[in-house]
Amino acid sequence: MFIHLKAFESYMAAGVQPPVNLKFFIEGEEEVGSKNLTRFIETHADLLRADVCVISDSGMVDPAQPAIINSVRGMTYMEVHVVGPNKDLHSGGYGGMVHNPALALIQILSKMHDADNHITVPGFYDEVVALSPEEREELKKTDFIEADLKSEFALTELWGEAGYTLRERIGARPTFEINGLYSGYIGEGAKTVLPSAAMAKISCRLVANQTSEGIYELVKAYVAQLTPPGVTSETILLNTGEPALIDFNTPMMSAAVRAYEAGWGKAPIFVREGGSIPVVADMQRILGLPVLMMGYGLNSDGAHGPNERFSIEMFHKGIDTAIVFLNEAAKVGRAG
Amino acid sequence: MFIHLKAFESYMAAGVQPPVNLKFFIEGEEEVGSKNLTRFIETHADLLRADVCVISDSGMVDPAQPAIINSVRGMTYMEVHVVGPNKDLHSGGYGGMVHNPALALIQILSKMHDADNHITVPGFYDEVVALSPEEREELKKTDFIEADLKSEFALTELWGEAGYTLRERIGARPTFEINGLYSGYIGEGAKTVLPSAAMAKISCRLVANQTSEGIYELVKAYVAQLTPPGVTSETILLNTGEPALIDFNTPMMSAAVRAYEAGWGKAPIFVREGGSIPVVADMQRILGLPVLMMGYGLNSDGAHGPNERFSIEMFHKGIDTAIVFLNEAAKVGRAG
Repeated sequence: MFIHLKAFESYMAAGVQPPVNLKFFIEGEEEVGSKNLTRFIETHADLLRADVCVISDSGMVDPAQPAIINSVRGMTYMEVHVVGPNKDLHSGGYGGMVHNPALALIQILSKMHDADNHITVPGFYDEVVALSPEEREELKKTDFIEADLKSEFALTELWGEAGYTLRERIGARPTFEINGLYSGYIGEGAKTVLPSAAMAKISCRLVANQTSEGIYELVKAYVAQLTPPGVTSETILLNTGEPALIDFNTPMMSAAVRAYEAGWGKAPIFVREGGSIPVVADMQRILGLPVLMMGYGLNSDGAHGPNERFSIEMFHKGIDTAIVFLNEAAKVGRAG
Repeated sequence: MFIHLKAFESYMAAGVQPPVNLKFFIEGEEEVGSKNLTRFIETHADLLRADVCVISDSGMVDPAQPAIINSVRGMTYMEVHVVGPNKDLHSGGYGGMVHNPALALIQILSKMHDADNHITVPGFYDEVVALSPEEREELKKTDFIEADLKSEFALTELWGEAGYTLRERIGARPTFEINGLYSGYIGEGAKTVLPSAAMAKISCRLVANQTSEGIYELVKAYVAQLTPPGVTSETILLNTGEPALIDFNTPMMSAAVRAYEAGWGKAPIFVREGGSIPVVADMQRILGLPVLMMGYGLNSDGAHGPNERFSIEMFHKGIDTAIVFLNEAAKVGRAG
C-alpha cells in the first residue's frame, strides 16, 4: 500500500496531476480468517467502485525477476470429530471390544488418498479447471527445484499427486491436508486410556473452479460414508476462501506488464501460488473487477517470522513500477 | 492386605497359633509403572521365599459370586513418532509436494488391523496360547452382556476380533490400541500448518505366551516397514508387563476354592481379566510361586475415581474366606 501511496505522492511532488484516483482498501483481519471482509465488500460495492484492483500481498523468488501472481488457491478448513464411548475407558478392561475413536478416525482419514496420492473424495476434482498443454509448458519456467527443497527441509523425498510437476501440484491442483490430530493422552509417559473421542483439523486447498462450500459438502458426505459402526462422526466447517484464476490476456494485465518493463527494467513472469488470498475471488465475483497481484516481497523477508523485513531495493523498484502503472492504467481506463 | 492381616489377627485374638507365616509385600509404585518392582523381586528372592503368593488386586462382578482371576494380560506401551520436514511449513506454500507426517502416521496405523479386526503385525499371534474347546465353553459363563455394555457407554455397536466372544476378546486375545494421537495445531480455530511431526501412543495388551519385548520388536519392525518415503519414524518403548495364565488345577488353587466355599458360602468362578497386573508373571517366573488372585473389589467401588470406596460386606466376607484359606494353605504346604 505504501508503494502505491508513494507513487501517488511522487506525481504531486512533481507538480503533476496524478492520472487516476486511488482508493486504499485496508484490512486488519487477514491473520484471523477475514470473517467480515466478504460481507463488507458485498455491502459497500459503491464505495469500492473502481476500474482495477491491485493487491500487493505476494512476492517474487528472484529480486531481478518481477512476478505477477495469476492464480491463488481457495480453502475449506474443517474439523472432523469421531466419538465412541460416552467417557474414556480403561484400555485393559475394554480394549478389544469397544471401537477406539482414534483408530476409527485413522481408518477414515487413511482412505482420502489413493496410491498415486490422488484425493479419493467422490466428486472432488469434478470442477477443477484442467491445465492446457500450453500452460503446462509455461509453468515449467517457474517450477521448483527439487534438490533445493529437499536440502532446505532435510527431506529424502518429496511427495505428491502422480502426473503433475511440483509447480502444478502447488499452483493448479487441490489438496487434502491434515493440519492437526488429537486424541486421548498426549503428555509424558504412559496412560492406558481408550479415548472417548478423536479429532482432526483438515484443510483442502482449492483451485478454480472448485467452491469451498461444495468441497465441504463432498468431504462431509465421504467422512459420513466411511465412518464405521460403533462410533459417530461430525464434520464442522471452520473457514472458507474461494480460489481465483486470473486471465493474463487482458488490457489491465498488459498495462501491468508494461509498468514492470519500464519501472523494473524487465517483463514480469506469471506465477501460480499455492497459498490463499480469498479477497482476490471476492473482488472478481462481487465487484466484477480485474485483479492484479503485483507484490514485491522476497523469500528472505521472513514473513510471519522473527525479524520480518522488507527490502529497501524492492520498495524503490516497486514505487518506480507503480508510478508507470498508474499512467498505464489511466490509458486503459480511458480506452475502456 | 488388610483382609489377610485381619485374618491373621483373628487367629491370635482367639488364642490360636496361626497355621502359616505371612509375609506382606507392599508396593507403592503401581500407578506409575512399577519401575523398580521386578528388579526388587529378582534381587530379594530369599526374603520373598514362600509357598504361595496371594494378590487381592482384583474384583468380582456380583457380590454373591466370588471370583478368582486366572489370567491377566501383559502390556507393551510405545510411542510412534513420524518426522517430516525439519520445521512446520505453510500448508498453502508446500501442501501437495511435501509428505505430511500426520498423514504418514495415519497410513502406518491404518494397516495394523485387517477387515476382521485381526492385528496384522507379522508374527503378532505366533506365541498366543490358543483356547481349548473346553475353556471356550467355560468362558461362556463369564461373558459380557452386549446390551449392558452398549447401554452403559452409549454405543450402537461393540467391536472386536471376528470369531471370538467378548470375554475371549478381553481375556484371551491381544490388542493393538491407540491411547493418544498428536500432531500440528489442536487449539481453537484454524491454523494452516503442515506439521513437521506426528506422534501416537500405542499399547498392546498381551496374552500368554507373548512377551512384551518380543511384541515391541515386531511392532517396531512393522512400523519401519510401513513408513513411506519422505518421512522417518521411530518406535520408542515406554513400559512393559508380562501376561500371566494361571493353571486352576493345582493344590493351592483347590485350597482357595475350599476357602471360598467355607468362608463365602459359594464356590468361586474363574475369570480371565483384560487388565494387566505384571507382578503376577514376575512371581511365577522369578520366584516360581503359585499365584492366587483372590480379590474382593466391586464394579461399584469407583476404582481410581472420585469417592473410591470398599464395601464393608466384602471386607468381612473376605476376612472369613482368608481365615479358612490360611488353614487350607497350611495343609497343602505340609503335604507339599
